[in-house]
Amino acid sequence: MSKILVFGHQNPDTDAITSAITYSHLLNQLGEEAEAIALGDLNPETQFALEHFSVQAPRVLKKVAAETDRVALVDHNEFQQSAEDIREVDIHSVVDHHRIANFETASPLAYTARPVGCTQTVIYGLYQVHGVEVTKEIAGLMLSGLISDTLLLKSPTCTEEDRKLASKLAEIAGIDLEAYGLDMLRAGADVSEKSALEIADGDAKSFEMNGHSVRIGQVNVVDVNDVLKRKDDMLQVMQKETAEKGYDAFFLVVTNILTNDSEGLLVANVDLVEHFEKAFAGEIVDSQIALPGLVSRKKQIVPPLTEAFEEA
Amino acid sequence: MSKILVFGHQNPDTDAITSAITYSHLLNQLGEEAEAIALGDLNPETQFALEHFSVQAPRVLKKVAAETDRVALVDHNEFQQSAEDIREVDIHSVVDHHRIANFETASPLAYTARPVGCTQTVIYGLYQVHGVEVTKEIAGLMLSGLISDTLLLKSPTCTEEDRKLASKLAEIAGIDLEAYGLDMLRAGADVSEKSALEIADGDAKSFEMNGHSVRIGQVNVVDVNDVLKRKDDMLQVMQKETAEKGYDAFFLVVTNILTNDSEGLLVANVDLVEHFEKAFAGEIVDSQIALPGLVSRKKQIVPPLTEAFEEA
Repeated sequence: MSKILVFGHQNPDTDAITSAITYSHLLNQLGEEAEAIALGDLNPETQFALEHFSVQAPRVLKKVAAETDRVALVDHNEFQQSAEDIREVDIHSVVDHHRIANFETASPLAYTARPVGCTQTVIYGLYQVHGVEVTKEIAGLMLSGLISDTLLLKSPTCTEEDRKLASKLAEIAGIDLEAYGLDMLRAGADVSEKSALEIADGDAKSFEMNGHSVRIGQVNVVDVNDVLKRKDDMLQVMQKETAEKGYDAFFLVVTNILTNDSEGLLVANVDLVEHFEKAFAGEIVDSQIALPGLVSRKKQIVPPLTEAFEEA
Repeated sequence: MSKILVFGHQNPDTDAITSAITYSHLLNQLGEEAEAIALGDLNPETQFALEHFSVQAPRVLKKVAAETDRVALVDHNEFQQSAEDIREVDIHSVVDHHRIANFETASPLAYTARPVGCTQTVIYGLYQVHGVEVTKEIAGLMLSGLISDTLLLKSPTCTEEDRKLASKLAEIAGIDLEAYGLDMLRAGADVSEKSALEIADGDAKSFEMNGHSVRIGQVNVVDVNDVLKRKDDMLQVMQKETAEKGYDAFFLVVTNILTNDSEGLLVANVDLVEHFEKAFAGEIVDSQIALPGLVSRKKQIVPPLTEAFEEA
């Protein structure tokens, strides 16, 4: 049997990378040969987490079929977010916490998903089922994924189970949850070295809304002015991307991880602007709209926007 | 929150029906309001099992949206095998042991699948995770699903885990595995009272293969001649179904549960016949092909056929 390559989604975040590592460790403990890889470069937040626990970064690959015919997906399932040649390999297993779409297999597989705040919570459950020890390093990686996806337990996607697990993992990892969490999020919130395109599109995903292609990016900061002081540059690059990629709108959500408020920047076809104003009950002034209390793209940005587009 | 309706696939077999009952029992124990239903009438094998353990048969429904907006799927995931109005409701959870295809959700959900011999083995694992007691009746139902799907542990889909679980469940249920298993399979293998349509389509499922709709039925017997002596009638009804339902092919697998060999009967668009010959390395003679040693639709029929269709 060939080695199982384990990976999270493209544009990997901390949950995607650390889940690949903890899940491949679990597979190894269960007697499978497995290796975690990454479908893209690690962001500074993830680098901070791996360095803190002295864990080596995985290799970066875009395609996998040249190396193996068996893979495991973590933190995603939709093929357009996966390895470019995902359809050429067998999927051994999936561990995830997202909706299921654009996913199919020819054979039965192990698929474990639950509607919790991060993939690591699901993986922790598998460690329990198989009686595999959660070491200090594994606990640290699991906790880092959890903190990243739930914005240190502040996101509405965070469940009671995630909260309880966070305390338990912090104890095993021997760290102060709050202090480590803020340090880690801060490491990812430094945009000073990033280009306007990296800020706008680095974490962006495309969504289909009533026939319109809506690009939604999100960037975490400790001060929204770190991005807003470069607003003209930001809007220019969003305009350029929109024209080149054929989007109907590009919405960038700038999230303050300390206050848990956001500001939105918008470039859109003129007919679509009102949908954003309706969705977020505010006014777009000078291409900008306040999004007080909103931090979750999945739960607080995409659903009201989808609804506003559909009611139009 | 509305009640969760729990159901297996259309043309339900024993694993589909008993899994709906054991999984809805688990959900009830976890504080959810859930009810097992069936998407079709129970076959004689399933009736034998429910009667043996004095368990009431579930209601039969074809559509569910009029009663609830939340459902749980067991022993299937492909929408064409599910409730007719499956796209109108939210899927709370899935427990399964099949490939994943033609399945998608708008929201995250709990999805638990493992490549084992029956859905009941996966459900048993969930009982363990949640510390819910497996009573005598629940054990009996789980074992019946396991025996049915693995042909009394003879199918290549049967794993070591299924085998161990079978012994454990037989003990809890207080029955002799071999004796009960043969009695149950025999109860389902009597085709003398069945119409040709019931034999061909009673357990049939539709599969999408490279753009073609392929209907695959399977019937268990203790002598393949019980069906083959009615071959003309069988082919006629398969032809009629194919024309009326718009299938591109209808393949009926007649399986001898004592010898673990099968014979295949085929009605297909002329261009597709070669795919069957290629898949099973034999010749279709007089609409019939020998399938020695093949008993598992999931593991031995669908995969080579899918591959043959895709290579075409």
